[in-house]
Amino acid sequence: MTWKDPEKWQKMIDGTACPFCKDIHLDENRFSFKVFEFPNSIVRLPKNQYKRGWTVVALKRHATELYELEPNELAGFFEEVAMVAKALKTVFDPVKLNYSIFGNLCPHVHCHVIPQYMSDDPHAPIKMDEAEVLLTQEEYWSMIDQIKDQLVLNKH
Amino acid sequence: MTWKDPEKWQKMIDGTACPFCKDIHLDENRFSFKVFEFPNSIVRLPKNQYKRGWTVVALKRHATELYELEPNELAGFFEEVAMVAKALKTVFDPVKLNYSIFGNLCPHVHCHVIPQYMSDDPHAPIKMDEAEVLLTQEEYWSMIDQIKDQLVLNKH
Repeated sequence: MTWKDPEKWQKMIDGTACPFCKDIHLDENRFSFKVFEFPNSIVRLPKNQYKRGWTVVALKRHATELYELEPNELAGFFEEVAMVAKALKTVFDPVKLNYSIFGNLCPHVHCHVIPQYMSDDPHAPIKMDEAEVLLTQEEYWSMIDQIKDQLVLNKH
Repeated sequence: MTWKDPEKWQKMIDGTACPFCKDIHLDENRFSFKVFEFPNSIVRLPKNQYKRGWTVVALKRHATELYELEPNELAGFFEEVAMVAKALKTVFDPVKLNYSIFGNLCPHVHCHVIPQYMSDDPHAPIKMDEAEVLLTQEEYWSMIDQIKDQLVLNKH
């Protein structure tokens, strides 16, 4: 389900068969939990937490490239990404944050916000399927609550 | 020169010893050529073109995380990133664009805009030092001119 299958890819690009559009609003989907809803985006916590604090900010409406967004929509989306980054900095105390919009597997604008820690290799590339670290339901809820609390706090 | 050397890292973070601040304005520095200057950013073409069209959009002033930017600065920066993406789409005809802000080696806000082509592996992680592909001066100039032309065209 990538550009290697041009017919399916085209349907993902134009939004007629976009997996993200189907399930980013759900409290829980196959890959992640909903953390917070912003005007332009939904914040989600991936179940795979091999990088502690890895969070995804997904645009609510379907678009595949940044230049498709209206100026105020683009501004709002990245304001929301920045708020998430600030919340992750407070909750997880990383040494640096990384921000990546790929869309190679699902071309729906979403930004991975990835905390990098002192013990991490700064040269290691971001590879989402490098390892799988699943947590208990309580651990997910605790992380979600902490991130959400910071987002609410910073909003006011 | 990463977070593995906390003293130097701190000086890069606070901007007192930031390599980017020293040379992102130059027409040519060790790693790249200047393509275009926007109100908030400088667009640069890395000499290493192992991904054809790889371009970097660097914030003019020093900042390390997105939440340090003022709302209008953040909006302006990503408007400029989006304009670069649109130009790269026109010039190089990629199947998808990737946008990554890392800063693990130099914590000065800069966004890599990376074209992905039909022949590329969608699962391959972004690894800037994976290979080194250097071009001739004429080839660099031709790419720079094409990108610049699109940026000027789209601005008006």
